[in-house]
Amino acid sequence: MVVLVRARNSNNIGAAARAMHDFGFRHLRIVMEYAPPLETARSAVDASKILAEAKTFASVAEAVADCTLVVGTTAVGSRALEHRLELLAQAGQKIHTEVANPASRVAILFGSEKTGLSNEELSHCHWVLTIPMYEHEEMRHPSMNLGQAVAVCLYELVRNPEQTSNVGLREAARAEDVERFLALFREVLEETGYMQRYPANARETQLRRLVLRMGLTAEDMPVWMGVMRQMLWKIRQADDRNVQG
Amino acid sequence: MVVLVRARNSNNIGAAARAMHDFGFRHLRIVMEYAPPLETARSAVDASKILAEAKTFASVAEAVADCTLVVGTTAVGSRALEHRLELLAQAGQKIHTEVANPASRVAILFGSEKTGLSNEELSHCHWVLTIPMYEHEEMRHPSMNLGQAVAVCLYELVRNPEQTSNVGLREAARAEDVERFLALFREVLEETGYMQRYPANARETQLRRLVLRMGLTAEDMPVWMGVMRQMLWKIRQADDRNVQG
Repeated sequence: MVVLVRARNSNNIGAAARAMHDFGFRHLRIVMEYAPPLETARSAVDASKILAEAKTFASVAEAVADCTLVVGTTAVGSRALEHRLELLAQAGQKIHTEVANPASRVAILFGSEKTGLSNEELSHCHWVLTIPMYEHEEMRHPSMNLGQAVAVCLYELVRNPEQTSNVGLREAARAEDVERFLALFREVLEETGYMQRYPANARETQLRRLVLRMGLTAEDMPVWMGVMRQMLWKIRQADDRNVQG
Repeated sequence: MVVLVRARNSNNIGAAARAMHDFGFRHLRIVMEYAPPLETARSAVDASKILAEAKTFASVAEAVADCTLVVGTTAVGSRALEHRLELLAQAGQKIHTEVANPASRVAILFGSEKTGLSNEELSHCHWVLTIPMYEHEEMRHPSMNLGQAVAVCLYELVRNPEQTSNVGLREAARAEDVERFLALFREVLEETGYMQRYPANARETQLRRLVLRMGLTAEDMPVWMGVMRQMLWKIRQADDRNVQG
């Protein structure tokens, strides 16, 4: 679950909820000393259900009471960290391992936009993760937009599903079909005089490499065959008429 | 570089620029029919330099003219995709490999918040990536907030900074050279009568996709141009003789 601690901007809360929706996370907890300004956030696209079911707590301790793993987030900066710090990529693997245990309940804490998590808040965390950011020389305090940080962290947790989707994958053309195309292509090159004019480019192996680098798909193959046949037809038809003329 | 195509909300442009700043990307290009509303976006924290240096173009073709790899982004949904589709994690590796080549220039395109990239815009892409999102049963059109989508994509590109070997890498052709080849290819198809015979295959966007799937390299480009020129010469020469005969 995602725990937002003292988020100041309700748009950011909405953005965090939208990222949760996008990546399939449901449980949002909000730590605030006063009633959170969720009214405007509730307009966040697609995230209304998550916001409606969000639970509010007065302290981090209460918000994570039922969790088995509590992970803080930080932009590091100059703060002296007393926690084990993991880059997000490694943190994702560790969280994955924990989640595999059905009895687990994992909380990821995000601090306020201005100050991040306080030392007290961090003290509730088993360890801390950081999103690797570019170090600009002129800046001492890197920080990310809260909604973007939540999106990036949740993406890391879902990024590599074991079963890779094969939606939209294209089947490569079979080698024998590529050879058939190559033969036709050579015929066209013969007819045009290309072979005689550029013999260095027209060697069999050269042409095969050229064609293989096209990475032809099974689906494109008939289109390319049609293109070449039409060229051959046109050249021969023109030549025939010429001979008859 | 990041190319935002018809982004409607200047806050989203600002958010995209901020994510670029966070992850160390500098070059932002904006495709818009009218002057972009960057004034409000320019207030985006930390991203002022990126926004100040952003370049505006009237079309995707112009925005990506000097690029060697153009990658579209899509939420998939119900759209019938004619492109090879990669999950972001795999796409990140492929982009890494391309970037390892010093001559490369990679553009990642993000469409407008409402409609994403059009088919014409997608036709300029070598392939398309998608951020794996949770499939909610009740929703047919998944989509992410633009600023969050940019943040997640750029994070993927920096998350695992292992050096990719560039041994044996071939330099890709620049988009403007591909367009030049496409124009010549169309001329040949015109002359052969292919356009009339197979109009469904000969639409501009169809042909551009067909050619982009060839994965033309800078080295192969003059060879293919030579092949097409020779075809054109032969067909016209034969036709001329025919007329004279």
